Amino acid sequence: MARQKKQQRPKAQTPKGFRDCFGTEVAERNRMLSRIAEVYHRYGFDPLESPAVETVESLGKFLPDVDRPNEGVFAWQDDDDATWLALRYDLTAPLARVYAQHRNELPTPYRRYAMGPVWRNEKPGPGRFRQFYQCDADTVGSSSPAADAEICAMLADTLESVGVPRGEYIVRINNRKVLNGVMEVAGILDPSEPERFATERGIVLRAVDKLDRLGPQGVRALLGEGRKDESGDFTSGARLSDDQADTVMRFVEAGRQDMAATVTRLRGLTSGSETGTLGVSELETIGESLDLQGYGADRIRIDPSVVRGLAYYTGPVFEAELTFDITDDQGRQRQFGSVAGGGRYDDLVKRFTGQEVPATGISIGVDRLLAALQARGSANRAATGPVLVTVMDRDRLGDYQAMVTELRNAGVRAEMYLGNPKNFGGQLRYADRRDCPLAIIQGSDERKRNCVIVKNLALGKRLAAEITSNEEWKNQPAQQEVARADLVAEVLNSIDAAERMQQADI
Amino acid sequence: MARQKKQQRPKAQTPKGFRDCFGTEVAERNRMLSRIAEVYHRYGFDPLESPAVETVESLGKFLPDVDRPNEGVFAWQDDDDATWLALRYDLTAPLARVYAQHRNELPTPYRRYAMGPVWRNEKPGPGRFRQFYQCDADTVGSSSPAADAEICAMLADTLESVGVPRGEYIVRINNRKVLNGVMEVAGILDPSEPERFATERGIVLRAVDKLDRLGPQGVRALLGEGRKDESGDFTSGARLSDDQADTVMRFVEAGRQDMAATVTRLRGLTSGSETGTLGVSELETIGESLDLQGYGADRIRIDPSVVRGLAYYTGPVFEAELTFDITDDQGRQRQFGSVAGGGRYDDLVKRFTGQEVPATGISIGVDRLLAALQARGSANRAATGPVLVTVMDRDRLGDYQAMVTELRNAGVRAEMYLGNPKNFGGQLRYADRRDCPLAIIQGSDERKRNCVIVKNLALGKRLAAEITSNEEWKNQPAQQEVARADLVAEVLNSIDAAERMQQADI
Repeated sequence: MARQKKQQRPKAQTPKGFRDCFGTEVAERNRMLSRIAEVYHRYGFDPLESPAVETVESLGKFLPDVDRPNEGVFAWQDDDDATWLALRYDLTAPLARVYAQHRNELPTPYRRYAMGPVWRNEKPGPGRFRQFYQCDADTVGSSSPAADAEICAMLADTLESVGVPRGEYIVRINNRKVLNGVMEVAGILDPSEPERFATERGIVLRAVDKLDRLGPQGVRALLGEGRKDESGDFTSGARLSDDQADTVMRFVEAGRQDMAATVTRLRGLTSGSETGTLGVSELETIGESLDLQGYGADRIRIDPSVVRGLAYYTGPVFEAELTFDITDDQGRQRQFGSVAGGGRYDDLVKRFTGQEVPATGISIGVDRLLAALQARGSANRAATGPVLVTVMDRDRLGDYQAMVTELRNAGVRAEMYLGNPKNFGGQLRYADRRDCPLAIIQGSDERKRNCVIVKNLALGKRLAAEITSNEEWKNQPAQQEVARADLVAEVLNSIDAAERMQQADI
Repeated sequence: MARQKKQQRPKAQTPKGFRDCFGTEVAERNRMLSRIAEVYHRYGFDPLESPAVETVESLGKFLPDVDRPNEGVFAWQDDDDATWLALRYDLTAPLARVYAQHRNELPTPYRRYAMGPVWRNEKPGPGRFRQFYQCDADTVGSSSPAADAEICAMLADTLESVGVPRGEYIVRINNRKVLNGVMEVAGILDPSEPERFATERGIVLRAVDKLDRLGPQGVRALLGEGRKDESGDFTSGARLSDDQADTVMRFVEAGRQDMAATVTRLRGLTSGSETGTLGVSELETIGESLDLQGYGADRIRIDPSVVRGLAYYTGPVFEAELTFDITDDQGRQRQFGSVAGGGRYDDLVKRFTGQEVPATGISIGVDRLLAALQARGSANRAATGPVLVTVMDRDRLGDYQAMVTELRNAGVRAEMYLGNPKNFGGQLRYADRRDCPLAIIQGSDERKRNCVIVKNLALGKRLAAEITSNEEWKNQPAQQEVARADLVAEVLNSIDAAERMQQADI
């Protein structure tokens, strides 16, 4: 009886595939976003913030490999007028809608950047979230390869500005037109019959995309009869002839350190195809522009094996890969892989307006990039916790509060303990959990002598951890008494010292 | 026939009630958010970012005046397990869920701030959006009035830090318990029969909430028989007796400049009610703490007429109001009104855990605050446009690009014109639209002499606008030729001068 009367309580649980981000992680991501925004701003890009919600109609259907209802988006019908609404799945589809809607008021070309969460209605899994951050930059209204080159240069600058050292990333460029040209030459794409061999071409694209994982022999097998993997599963191939497969393989392996050398090889491989030749000269112009700006093969490279998944790319495609090793969950060393991708999509605005509007851009996977920097150990240091003014005598909250106010007015992050002050150990455990650098203590004894104790918690931890005492530390006791009037000066002093110590750690 | 074949194009339109935010507005809001975050951080609050999507069950139903399906939220059923999901309608309900879910890992008290969009499924109207920003700070796990005082002090500091001068805002504090005590004394609330007179109390609450708009006589009428407005419409009143209505009116008008005086009056009005007496002493403690910290009646005041709409408040409630006049759409002078509100909600976490967890906090309506600062003319100046390197000779893109790269490397926001360069007038119109401070020009003539023209567009606009020439400007021609090698130095110089000129404008 009593049980039935009991009201059922809601479950305190994030929905499946969603997660909460706390203090340090939020702060690190915000710092990364503002550094990215600084670079984008310097390049002349303007911020745009479109709503999280769009009509399903205007978002369109461009997500790859979708096996879910609603094409992988979270969608519902509006109570107001029965329109189908959905959460955006990327920042590019909304940009096309924004540009089509506001094109008369926007400058042309329109350089914009956008950062924020996007949502994918995918089956949740470990490390696979249904809400994640993207950070995009796009130039709408310019067909010039200089626009593509600018995007790639900016991507390289951005990676360095968030803490990826030169030499530990590579921006790779390819062109869908070159690949199409090679497939024309190999006889598996006929511009007058675009639907013919579509299945074969699909298999070729997916095979090329797997070069990193399968190696050249694996790709070659998939171009022919097919391939058996380690588990014994067999994947059917594209069943190209040996000649055809060899042509595709020569393309895949055409990349050279030197852009000019790569271009020469690609020109040979697409000879006779108008599309292919156009694609190669676009790559050449991009390459020359980057060369002039000083972006060499240590930063940006033409790589014919780059294939991006999204259906809307029409020309150059870009990908940024981190090349340093990290240790994965199974303890294996591996490269981190792709953290950004993009390309030219000349038909996306046309969906709305009927007129072709050239556009090119890049999307950075902010959460992946942050995870990579954390794995490398080069994420920005998180801010430290506040200085904690402890409560020894609960009738003198006003005195403690006054200390906090003085500290805050001096720009110091500080707070008074607001929990139950009965148990002093609880206050120190709280300080530990908050990562407080200092605790301020004033019992009745200190009060009488008009002084306070400044307890250096960071130093205390260090001293406790390291048994062998260091001469320098002997002169830095973890706890000292100072006159009440000197509180602010002493705290500023101690925090500076703690920061210097941290710097020395890095 | 041809018409039928034509594919239907999607409409390029934001969904009803949603909007796009462009350059300046996004930048101003971000600047405001980071200033708010700075203050919150200094007070010891940590950032939290929970997902936009929550289960409907955990969000609960706390929105006031909802006449829509799904209680005013955007909701849908998850494909995965048929759970009802919804977009968050505020940042407080998710905080309660987060704290209940992670309470074993979080410090207690837990001070957190959160900023981001929230969504309301309301009927869209002019100036009424279905997605808007909130910026919240809350302390969970402390029942101390010092926590409420801290929130109010922080709110005052925050308003000043984003550009509201002292004296042009007021933070008003009240306590739900005091109002309940007054209603007990007036005989319209009986703690042993809480449901009795619920209708009357609802009318009283709504009437008190309208004091600003209706004045004391209007409120008094609504406490009695009712009130006829200017249009002749009649609103039924609470039908209190004269004695009862007078008691409520004495409460509503009990506010004095001096907190202590207000407290004394309130103590008299709630005499005999345990709840009321407790509420008054909470207000007194908050008032004393703020006094000690130097927050006088010019910044924070006890005001018994403050009633907040949300159903979950259990004690102190807060509201921040801007007191400067703005000109509204009809050209009338009026005060801007409320930009932030909050209070103590001790039962919200209990919904999940069954144990009472005290909590108090504030929510700033960022979009409203930004609109107010814009209306007052004190929003932060937006960043200027980029320096535009124009394209005179399309065979020399590399030269122009090199100029841009040099400028960017020197930290100057710069870009090359990426549109069709045929029409030079079009390039200058683009520069005008982008609000570019300078344009760089190098035709074949300048190229031969190895120099460039630096055109000061901002100065040019000013010279064109003002007929009477100023001596100073005669020495500042809007256009000058400099050696190619001096480009960066000259641009840095001109931008500094332009900024100084702008400063002088403010």
